[in-house]
Amino acid sequence: MKKIKINIPNYEYNVYLGNNIFNEILKLLKKENHTGNYLIVVDKKVSRLYSNLIDTTFAAAKNKVIKVILESTEKNKSYSAIQKIHSALIKNNYGRDSVIIAIGGGIIGDVAGFAASTYMRGVKYIQVPTTLLASVDSSVGGKTGINFDNTKNIIGSFYQPKLVLIDTNFFKTLPKEEQLCGLGEIIKYAFLINENFFTLVKNNLDKILANEPKVIEKVIIESVKFKGSVVTSDEKEQGVRKILNLGHTFAHAFEVQQDHKLKHGQAVIVGITCALYLSNKINLVNEKDFSVYLNLLTQFSNKIKLAKVDKKVINHIMQRDKKNRDNQIKLVLLSKVGTILTDINVDNSLINQSISEAIVHF
Amino acid sequence: MKKIKINIPNYEYNVYLGNNIFNEILKLLKKENHTGNYLIVVDKKVSRLYSNLIDTTFAAAKNKVIKVILESTEKNKSYSAIQKIHSALIKNNYGRDSVIIAIGGGIIGDVAGFAASTYMRGVKYIQVPTTLLASVDSSVGGKTGINFDNTKNIIGSFYQPKLVLIDTNFFKTLPKEEQLCGLGEIIKYAFLINENFFTLVKNNLDKILANEPKVIEKVIIESVKFKGSVVTSDEKEQGVRKILNLGHTFAHAFEVQQDHKLKHGQAVIVGITCALYLSNKINLVNEKDFSVYLNLLTQFSNKIKLAKVDKKVINHIMQRDKKNRDNQIKLVLLSKVGTILTDINVDNSLINQSISEAIVHF
Repeated sequence: MKKIKINIPNYEYNVYLGNNIFNEILKLLKKENHTGNYLIVVDKKVSRLYSNLIDTTFAAAKNKVIKVILESTEKNKSYSAIQKIHSALIKNNYGRDSVIIAIGGGIIGDVAGFAASTYMRGVKYIQVPTTLLASVDSSVGGKTGINFDNTKNIIGSFYQPKLVLIDTNFFKTLPKEEQLCGLGEIIKYAFLINENFFTLVKNNLDKILANEPKVIEKVIIESVKFKGSVVTSDEKEQGVRKILNLGHTFAHAFEVQQDHKLKHGQAVIVGITCALYLSNKINLVNEKDFSVYLNLLTQFSNKIKLAKVDKKVINHIMQRDKKNRDNQIKLVLLSKVGTILTDINVDNSLINQSISEAIVHF
Repeated sequence: MKKIKINIPNYEYNVYLGNNIFNEILKLLKKENHTGNYLIVVDKKVSRLYSNLIDTTFAAAKNKVIKVILESTEKNKSYSAIQKIHSALIKNNYGRDSVIIAIGGGIIGDVAGFAASTYMRGVKYIQVPTTLLASVDSSVGGKTGINFDNTKNIIGSFYQPKLVLIDTNFFKTLPKEEQLCGLGEIIKYAFLINENFFTLVKNNLDKILANEPKVIEKVIIESVKFKGSVVTSDEKEQGVRKILNLGHTFAHAFEVQQDHKLKHGQAVIVGITCALYLSNKINLVNEKDFSVYLNLLTQFSNKIKLAKVDKKVINHIMQRDKKNRDNQIKLVLLSKVGTILTDINVDNSLINQSISEAIVHF
């Protein structure tokens, strides 16, 4: 089992990583003193596949254990899911020493984390991401949230977990398209980290998709460490953390416009492609790099299906993005691998052109 | 205008205090750089009495100003009020630089603060308490929250304001019973701070009730400073901050059992009386002090009206209190003015006896 320390000021915690390590969670929780009553928020599919493992593992717990099973849909990323969790906590007389454990993908983590951050003004929160996407993306950073009024992640909090356990064994039952979502975020890190990591990802796309343990572990470690270091220096996204949003302002808008039928990690690939076209259009990226980068982004574009794209709607949704100030769209753009620019204002017509050119590939 | 600095780690802010100072708020906001779009959450009664003052004051703002008017009832301390605020923010395209300003009593502050803490994972929050109770109690501490599933303040967050402005001129239109609520919390501080403050309060009860400016300003400054120092050393209520809950576990239970017809500050007087009886029962308070303290608590007991008290219900609600662990009621009890004990377990039968003896006075 590998251990990665995340050093966010006042919120130090460990990410444990390995294959087939879930059954050690109770030991780890005990070792780190997270021993109140447990409420497990578990994804419906994960529960169907692994309820035996989960129940057996937690049978040895000394305190109460209750489970809330949620279907991982954007519709469920809502107040009603939060209230379901809170009602279970209240009904079972759970106190401030409660420990909420999320077992599932990003949606489960976002919902359970927000519920933990607002129950009794904050109880302990543990994350067990069961998808590649959640492992590299939402297991570090402390962003929790739900959708409201048709606006993605508009309600939420910054709330750090006390412990993260990534068991790559869960990924083997993921559908291929879900693994592709994880790859989407990993491609984002390929652009953010450095040339070495870019090359590692570029040369191992198939192995990542096939969940090859050694490669998977390597890319998770690098991504988590990198994200950890960024979040450590800017927890509340005032500065450098904004680079993590590369492609995301576009991606979120596509997700909403496509009625959430386009999955997040896939939308990120589409979004970075838009950001790349736009970066090229304003001469941030030279032609040579542009074609190398575009090639990486479009390797699996045939696996990503877009319904009719309405640019006007996408543009409107982008304007509502949390990153904006003064009603101007603030974009994260790319100059070179490892050189990311944030808070860029670009003319709307260029944004629309970039979208038009990017979506040709999908 | 007086200025009190609150030094909570990472969350330093100023409390401005004076008579007739509201019209300077825009200047203060500008001076401290809180200049995004404003959303004002204002109490319905306050709006009726002061909408002219508020509108005139904010007419000079350079950014957008919108108002959400809320009735201050416990029923409104709910998700639907939160959603009303969030919908207004979303509809008006408010971004991360939004500033939410609460103008009203404790309920308005709790609701607006929670809405601010969860919109886009946190936007700026300014407090203008218009009641004596909110000025001494909720303007420092950062506790925000709403009720849910019949449980008071069960959902919420710790979230500090960026600036607090207390204009004692607002108090002059408060009903007497509301001023009595403020006195309830001030009596609590009389027990917490020291003998000098206890004597000041004891000798000026009538002047506090009559809103005599000099005395009022003095008790607010002492209370706010004291609360500030306590919260500074224990923001998340892990230790010393618990003393601020003197009488509150009882008080919350009374409020719920009395269907919120008993107001918070008045419930605090009843709650401290219960805590005093209990403290005496387990020999924490000697007989001499007991009678002095009881005398202070029951000065205005004829103004506090209790409907039928159901001890079983009160006991049950107390068991659900956030301060509990391991399903045991943890109480804050009193030994002497300035000497408060926390996390005390007491036999249920003694708790019930104390309630019986205390309520005789009300």
